[in-house]
Amino acid sequence: MSNDALQYATAHRTEFLTELQEFLSLPSISALPEHKVDMQRTAQWLADRFTALGLHNARVNPTTGHPVVTAEWLEAGPDKPTVLIYGHYDVQPVDPIELWHSDPFKAEVRDDYVYARGSSDDKGQMFIYAKVIEAFMQTSGRLPVNVKLLVEGEEEIGGPSLDAFIDDHRTQLKADVAVISDTHMLRPDQPCLVYALRGLCYIQVELTGPARDLHSGQYGGAIYNPIQALAEMLASLKDRDGHITVPGFYDKVLPLSEAERQILAQAPFSAAEFMQDAGVTGVWGEKGYTTKEQITARPTLEINGIWGGFTGEGSKTVLPAKAFAKISCRLVANQDHLEIAELLQEHLERIAPPYVKVETKRLHGGHGALINLDSKYMRAAHQVLQQVFGNAPVYEREGGSIPVVSTFQKVLGIDSIMLGFGLPDDGLHSPNERFYLPNFYHGIETAIRYFAEIGK
Amino acid sequence: MSNDALQYATAHRTEFLTELQEFLSLPSISALPEHKVDMQRTAQWLADRFTALGLHNARVNPTTGHPVVTAEWLEAGPDKPTVLIYGHYDVQPVDPIELWHSDPFKAEVRDDYVYARGSSDDKGQMFIYAKVIEAFMQTSGRLPVNVKLLVEGEEEIGGPSLDAFIDDHRTQLKADVAVISDTHMLRPDQPCLVYALRGLCYIQVELTGPARDLHSGQYGGAIYNPIQALAEMLASLKDRDGHITVPGFYDKVLPLSEAERQILAQAPFSAAEFMQDAGVTGVWGEKGYTTKEQITARPTLEINGIWGGFTGEGSKTVLPAKAFAKISCRLVANQDHLEIAELLQEHLERIAPPYVKVETKRLHGGHGALINLDSKYMRAAHQVLQQVFGNAPVYEREGGSIPVVSTFQKVLGIDSIMLGFGLPDDGLHSPNERFYLPNFYHGIETAIRYFAEIGK
Repeated sequence: MSNDALQYATAHRTEFLTELQEFLSLPSISALPEHKVDMQRTAQWLADRFTALGLHNARVNPTTGHPVVTAEWLEAGPDKPTVLIYGHYDVQPVDPIELWHSDPFKAEVRDDYVYARGSSDDKGQMFIYAKVIEAFMQTSGRLPVNVKLLVEGEEEIGGPSLDAFIDDHRTQLKADVAVISDTHMLRPDQPCLVYALRGLCYIQVELTGPARDLHSGQYGGAIYNPIQALAEMLASLKDRDGHITVPGFYDKVLPLSEAERQILAQAPFSAAEFMQDAGVTGVWGEKGYTTKEQITARPTLEINGIWGGFTGEGSKTVLPAKAFAKISCRLVANQDHLEIAELLQEHLERIAPPYVKVETKRLHGGHGALINLDSKYMRAAHQVLQQVFGNAPVYEREGGSIPVVSTFQKVLGIDSIMLGFGLPDDGLHSPNERFYLPNFYHGIETAIRYFAEIGK
Repeated sequence: MSNDALQYATAHRTEFLTELQEFLSLPSISALPEHKVDMQRTAQWLADRFTALGLHNARVNPTTGHPVVTAEWLEAGPDKPTVLIYGHYDVQPVDPIELWHSDPFKAEVRDDYVYARGSSDDKGQMFIYAKVIEAFMQTSGRLPVNVKLLVEGEEEIGGPSLDAFIDDHRTQLKADVAVISDTHMLRPDQPCLVYALRGLCYIQVELTGPARDLHSGQYGGAIYNPIQALAEMLASLKDRDGHITVPGFYDKVLPLSEAERQILAQAPFSAAEFMQDAGVTGVWGEKGYTTKEQITARPTLEINGIWGGFTGEGSKTVLPAKAFAKISCRLVANQDHLEIAELLQEHLERIAPPYVKVETKRLHGGHGALINLDSKYMRAAHQVLQQVFGNAPVYEREGGSIPVVSTFQKVLGIDSIMLGFGLPDDGLHSPNERFYLPNFYHGIETAIRYFAEIGK
């Protein structure tokens, strides 16, 4: 059964790529209100494909935000495992658009890559499962496992819809394991299995000084400038050693064990490549931890954006009324994102200088997660990845956040197997995001073999 | 001669206002490239009016930036003083446009005010002289003094054109005294005579961290975030007492004498009104100085704008490549704006954290100035202002900058008499800028009497 599916997949690479390009050309940017209609269109496009593949009950489920797409096929029999396949069809905004070498929604193929916003994160990786299902259905008319698909549209904005949807559909979504392709490999021939994810807490802070923008010559020197206040507050959030100064921030962090530090140290990681990839001349982070630990196993705080006053061309002599910043923390398992948001918000209100008003709001949040390495689903993943890529996968902690992994654990009681097919230089969230096409095809092969293996 | 002119001015207030509204409706925003044509149109409109008034040699002089308008009337005779009348026809940008209650270029009259960008700063004040000349010319066919007009279009952007123009036309612009209306009174019945102006030094700083915007989950925690770096640098530019920490910044500042502090303390100033006007609950500034001294007699440093990373709606998890700020200092007489710019630029480069690249550029600069209180032109101004407004003018230091006053001193060897008719709540550089119409008419009366007095 899987051999036929594998042959079908190999024979239809051209058609698979064309259809992927069509999917990538839909500008499903969840963060921007002007793309609301595109979000609906993309969800409908997916549901139509799922129906065409032979899946049942393909639906575009309305939410308070962007819709959730679901579908299922449960005829493998009650003795076969049920796999919940998760992905997201929404993508990040494309700015700065002028740095793209081709239209982010034209999905141009150059060399072995397809270039498009969402190509790697996550439309390209998610679409692998559509093609896996097609390969099985077109050759055997059935799948080796039961599947339930859950594709959301608010991953990039941390919208609240998915958690509510999962909570309301616990029975419908009941499964034995979840499979997610939204992570990356270390190299084209070096797969990895992510067993830990960081959580996220994202807030926005707004400072108000004077009631209106003032003339800096008439008022400057006697008013607390809100940009000055914001700079002082932000500067104080880390000490010289890169430790975050928000009281209580580290309280619930589980210390890294020596054993785990050794596992992390074994994962291939080149500081030189990391620096070259980021385009920096040196690394800087929390003292006492390796770069690898800093970006995967330790909580962080980054300022994602800042604005205030006159930002146009030239020299307006204004003393501004307002200043804003976006701040986010990556959290490790056991840190509660709501608790951290509250600590951070309270701290910002406390440290504000006199005569400046502080308002904060939460934009996004999700818990971290830690996955059991010793389940049959994890062992099968290890075996299949080694078979397809020729190298045993490395166990990795991922610096990014996939909050749904924590939700699946807490609400559905299942672990997620993260079969990542992205590459470190795919440029997620950056201009010229791309997806390595051999990984698209190897991803399809991996998932075909994986379903066959766990459905044996 | 002046009585006829005064009667004419009183009889023609309606026509004067209509023509002022026409002038204010020209959107002469010097900072924005898309208004380049409007700048040229406004200059031509002025030159046409000057010719129509009976002035000679009215010209729109091209420069490397926006044009300078000149005109003259030199037939009062060699025994009469020659007055150089300076003003600027350019205005500030209008953003945030949504806070305006009427179109900034419709010049709506409500109660006793005309509301328009540039109504007080400086088109409305400058236009007083056109109407003064009209009043004399239409009644006597001549003026009591020789006049030269110089109206520039780069005051709000500190463009280099005017200094070069003055330098190149020293002979053509030769005069005994300059008259400028670009300052304000304390109250509608309390004129003041500004005898000191602050200089300005305006720079922009650009920090570069990584080569591109990065995913904060994949890189956050191990890269020096340029917004973090900028916040730290800006926060360090003042100490807790509000002193500016740039080495050498205060070196050339002349200490305020006890006598001068007493003059300043006598000028009516209400901290409560200042706070209410600015919309703040308290004042904050350099320790050891009164609010009045802070905003007029001491040098200052303000952050005028800041931007970097994701500033749109929602929560993009980006670790940005770049962060920017606009910083300006108000300088007091004896501080050299070029020297201060260099000190500030060097300091910013020195204090940048590791792995962040700093680039700075100068956007604007001008020297401060101090005017002799004991000249016949200053004494005549004192006398006429008292006559028109009923109260003796107060001697004031002005917190803002009129760099041309320093240029007139250095290049032409003449002092400037600053007959200011703005009011403190005119909202210069802010939404709903306005000009108090009784001051427009009293300004015309003042200038008619002043020219008659110094031309006696």
